[in-house]
Amino acid sequence: MHNLYRHCSQLFGINRSLTGSGVRETLNYIKHQHPDLKIISFQSGDKAFDWTIPDEWNIQDAYIECIETGKKVVDFKKNNLHVVSYSIPVNKHMSFKELDQYLHSIPDQPDAIPYISSYYSPRWGFCLSNNQRQELRANPDRKYSVHIDSTLQPGEMNIGELVIPGESEEEIVISTYICHPSMANNELSGPSVAIELAHWVKQLTKKKYTYRFLFLVETIGSIAYLSKNLKQMKKNVKAGFVLTCIGDEGDYSIVHSRQGNNYADRVAQYAIKEFTQQPSIYSFLERGSDERQYCAPGVDLPFCTISRTKFGEYPEYHTSLDNLSFISEEGLQGGYNFALLCLKLIEKNDYYISNTICEPQLGKRGLYPTLSTKKTKNIVRNMMDLIAYSDGKNDIIHIGEKAKITPSSILEELNKLLKANLLKKSAET
Amino acid sequence: MHNLYRHCSQLFGINRSLTGSGVRETLNYIKHQHPDLKIISFQSGDKAFDWTIPDEWNIQDAYIECIETGKKVVDFKKNNLHVVSYSIPVNKHMSFKELDQYLHSIPDQPDAIPYISSYYSPRWGFCLSNNQRQELRANPDRKYSVHIDSTLQPGEMNIGELVIPGESEEEIVISTYICHPSMANNELSGPSVAIELAHWVKQLTKKKYTYRFLFLVETIGSIAYLSKNLKQMKKNVKAGFVLTCIGDEGDYSIVHSRQGNNYADRVAQYAIKEFTQQPSIYSFLERGSDERQYCAPGVDLPFCTISRTKFGEYPEYHTSLDNLSFISEEGLQGGYNFALLCLKLIEKNDYYISNTICEPQLGKRGLYPTLSTKKTKNIVRNMMDLIAYSDGKNDIIHIGEKAKITPSSILEELNKLLKANLLKKSAET
Amino acid sequence: MHNLYRHCSQLFGINRSLTGSGVRETLNYIKHQHPDLKIISFQSGDKAFDWTIPDEWNIQDAYIECIETGKKVVDFKKNNLHVVSYSIPVNKHMSFKELDQYLHSIPDQPDAIPYISSYYSPRWGFCLSNNQRQELRANPDRKYSVHIDSTLQPGEMNIGELVIPGESEEEIVISTYICHPSMANNELSGPSVAIELAHWVKQLTKKKYTYRFLFLVETIGSIAYLSKNLKQMKKNVKAGFVLTCIGDEGDYSIVHSRQGNNYADRVAQYAIKEFTQQPSIYSFLERGSDERQYCAPGVDLPFCTISRTKFGEYPEYHTSLDNLSFISEEGLQGGYNFALLCLKLIEKNDYYISNTICEPQLGKRGLYPTLSTKKTKNIVRNMMDLIAYSDGKNDIIHIGEKAKITPSSILEELNKLLKANLLKKSAET
Repeated sequence: MHNLYRHCSQLFGINRSLTGSGVRETLNYIKHQHPDLKIISFQSGDKAFDWTIPDEWNIQDAYIECIETGKKVVDFKKNNLHVVSYSIPVNKHMSFKELDQYLHSIPDQPDAIPYISSYYSPRWGFCLSNNQRQELRANPDRKYSVHIDSTLQPGEMNIGELVIPGESEEEIVISTYICHPSMANNELSGPSVAIELAHWVKQLTKKKYTYRFLFLVETIGSIAYLSKNLKQMKKNVKAGFVLTCIGDEGDYSIVHSRQGNNYADRVAQYAIKEFTQQPSIYSFLERGSDERQYCAPGVDLPFCTISRTKFGEYPEYHTSLDNLSFISEEGLQGGYNFALLCLKLIEKNDYYISNTICEPQLGKRGLYPTLSTKKTKNIVRNMMDLIAYSDGKNDIIHIGEKAKITPSSILEELNKLLKANLLKKSAET
Repeated sequence: MHNLYRHCSQLFGINRSLTGSGVRETLNYIKHQHPDLKIISFQSGDKAFDWTIPDEWNIQDAYIECIETGKKVVDFKKNNLHVVSYSIPVNKHMSFKELDQYLHSIPDQPDAIPYISSYYSPRWGFCLSNNQRQELRANPDRKYSVHIDSTLQPGEMNIGELVIPGESEEEIVISTYICHPSMANNELSGPSVAIELAHWVKQLTKKKYTYRFLFLVETIGSIAYLSKNLKQMKKNVKAGFVLTCIGDEGDYSIVHSRQGNNYADRVAQYAIKEFTQQPSIYSFLERGSDERQYCAPGVDLPFCTISRTKFGEYPEYHTSLDNLSFISEEGLQGGYNFALLCLKLIEKNDYYISNTICEPQLGKRGLYPTLSTKKTKNIVRNMMDLIAYSDGKNDIIHIGEKAKITPSSILEELNKLLKANLLKKSAET
Repeated sequence: MHNLYRHCSQLFGINRSLTGSGVRETLNYIKHQHPDLKIISFQSGDKAFDWTIPDEWNIQDAYIECIETGKKVVDFKKNNLHVVSYSIPVNKHMSFKELDQYLHSIPDQPDAIPYISSYYSPRWGFCLSNNQRQELRANPDRKYSVHIDSTLQPGEMNIGELVIPGESEEEIVISTYICHPSMANNELSGPSVAIELAHWVKQLTKKKYTYRFLFLVETIGSIAYLSKNLKQMKKNVKAGFVLTCIGDEGDYSIVHSRQGNNYADRVAQYAIKEFTQQPSIYSFLERGSDERQYCAPGVDLPFCTISRTKFGEYPEYHTSLDNLSFISEEGLQGGYNFALLCLKLIEKNDYYISNTICEPQLGKRGLYPTLSTKKTKNIVRNMMDLIAYSDGKNDIIHIGEKAKITPSSILEELNKLLKANLLKKSAET
């Protein structure tokens, strides 16, 4: 089995949340892949900008048992989505009528168990499919034993950080999530793709940039990380990408930064054209992932989010239907390729300038047809456009966009022209 | 009866022109509403930039009487549009053939008496409906006694100015017309809405800006006023609005300045969205009111014109059909609300900046749902967008436009966030 | 016969190429029209930026004779397109099978002889219609005597330069080609129009600018010329136009510079509106003429290319079908008028500023109707727009574009306002 899918399937069953043993187990899996992964801890009660690190949540078991039949009608051990994340402990008998107030289901998606959390307000609850709930409703007079064996007490919040140094202190950041319980696209696809991208970076013989991979819990994780690293990141980050929902076979998507034209925005906007004629491009108004923090006022790092089908845009989102069948090897590979092309473009992108005044004589270098006919121009169009627009003011990405040259073609033409010594880097970089 | 409509109906019968007793009578009505109105006089012969204040025109009576029947076939006392404005006196017998050269009617609008003026060239004439004219043409051999009892002699041109001081010397200007004879939308709607806006301003307990209301004659009035006040206005005017044709039930319209993006342009362009999905937005190329002077080269004050159906865009324009039936209480109220929202937005608009780095923790302030589900984002979207775009570089108007939040919603959300101390004014204001 | 067409027909039969006697004969014809034309020579082997001036090519005769029938089946004397330009000498007997490798035809255009060249790689070849080739193929066993009596040896490359001094050292450049053999639109239309434009410039009593007309060979000619004159041209050139394919009755076209908004781009973009509602506007991505050199990185002169139907956009392009029937007097006149209007606009264009604050009183100058009706504004719209937008920041071209005034109308209105002393040149020029 293919690595990308294997990571997802091995991590799927673990019960993750903002904090707790599931997060640590997940980070340990990643550390097994990348022994240089550093696991960072924040203590409950620590301040992070406007926020406070919450208590650590752990859960051993949870179920609803019908007193009449003795059957567990809802069982956390079957699917960790069954419990509202951060549920406080409960151990009680109650009527269906009372219990029903603690149940969550989606009438429009009768087979789906919803993913619900209550991180910052003490409550408990169970999630179940609407079909299950209808079965319970069929016997309104039954009584139930309700049991959540959880703890919510001071502990820690964990984050994984993997830094791979390059020639420059300037950094490319890849940020993704480890806080979602058993869902696959959102979010095991992001960590899986990030693990493999880190392997790719490590095998590069020459790296222009330093790479920083972050395996965070959403919102509070990125906020906490930024609260310790903002100054450094503002100095060094050249581009950052949030990876999320990047393993299905649907769209290729970008969620842009507030300004919409930072370096990451531009790279992703160009790279995506390699994969689809109809990219799904979302403005910051449709944000919802950690670009919310990286691009917040006062932070404003050059990040954007890249995805296959964007969070919230597929019906399986935040339900038990976002499972290992929803993602695929092909879907993950596409997402990986998209992210990888962003990195490759960044490594090669620059402001180049032609080494000649006027067009160069390409024929003498074997780069131009020696017989001039009506069709000559089409044959060498991409190469000629790359030369003609290399004026030191347009970087490769701009030229590719302008001249409608695919990213892979422009990387190839660039290579050819650099070899022939026809372009040089401009001082404007 | 509703104030807005009452002002129009009380002023309708007065014969106004560039100068003369009708203008003064109109200003006295406004002074009755606002005793602090200052009535300014310019003397005939005074210079104002490239122009000269004309002689004062007054008219006692005017008619065309059929000598044969002894009947007045056209009578100024029935409708003051019957006389070409600024007609010189005449007292003559003449054949229909001769008379016909002095008549004005509109073949395409056979019921309408046109509004015609000849301020700067001495002539006389009568305006009548094409139907009336056809009746006269039916008896081509009749003779007529033609009588205009007018005077055109040195006197004064009058303008009303009402200044309501606020906390700052920066000013918001409302400019409208008092030079049109018996027409309702163009132009009693403007003065009527301006009178009521001034009442609203006066009752404000806190006014960020000083307000200046101008009741002018079109073109020569604003030119004369600018010739005395340009330097001061260039220093102080933050935004100005010309009100005209603002009492019918049709479109909501803006005529933009030459640049199209001054502060008044931006405010009006945003405010109009509260009232219609299909605003009528006109560029300066379609100007025709006093924005011609306020936005002329060398003046370039931050003005635009706001209207219901724009001058020239409704067939009743500049005819007797623009009467008290063409406007309505509802139409005037809509126009008033549009102008009022512009003022409210200006009073509240600012460059705000988030008090937190990264998103604030809204839950602990009771501003965010404590249970996180698929639908959470939609519920708090407007508030979150206002926070996320408050980076000190986007004012409230820009954010509202960008995030497609209605003006009334953004004012409400802003209030909530200011109360919670989540935003502060940026130094960039 | 009309001069524009006459120049084309007189020059049509001459065998032109990059170098050789045909080029000189063509330049001598132009010198006969303009005795002040300077003929410049570059020597074979001279360096010009990345290029080397090639040897001079001359040809006396060339044919393919069927040994069996003794008939010349392809004969350079009938059409100089029959020989691949820059063919090396050959004198050989060969089978049809061997000969066929040296033949060029266009299957899709069976009547057309293609125009093929091989300037920088020694080869020989014949071009013929596909119909002719099919006839030869019908007798595959015939043998042929193949004869090209050409020389390729050190000599010179010639260029014609005509400078007409004006009041300023700032220059307008017109550049066109003299390197194409017997084709009419591409390229005798350009030289013909340029000859007549130079006559027009000479008869001007007052010339704001100096004019430079260049009769070049394409690519190597402009590169060689730039290699000697770049510094001077960067200092002096205000706008330049490449004229090519400017004699047919099809489109009016522009090929813009890389930036697309230099002064020549703006002038041509505005002028073209006088001639068509649907101009064919091409970006630099669709370049193909000497704008490639004038607008290359490191050169970046303010040039664009103007044409009737653009090179490559008509099927007759680079074939024998681009002949004297493809162009016409009317087509050439349209191309001439387009180029001429560009020059007229440049001579008159400036940043003007109104001499009055607020609108001027036009009535007292006889420029405005004295009777004010609904229709007054339309009558004087262009004049009023020209005044209202003359704020010293918009030049005439910008105002014309903005207010949708045709170039000829704006030149007329400008004249009227300058006479009335209502506008003056702004210092911003």
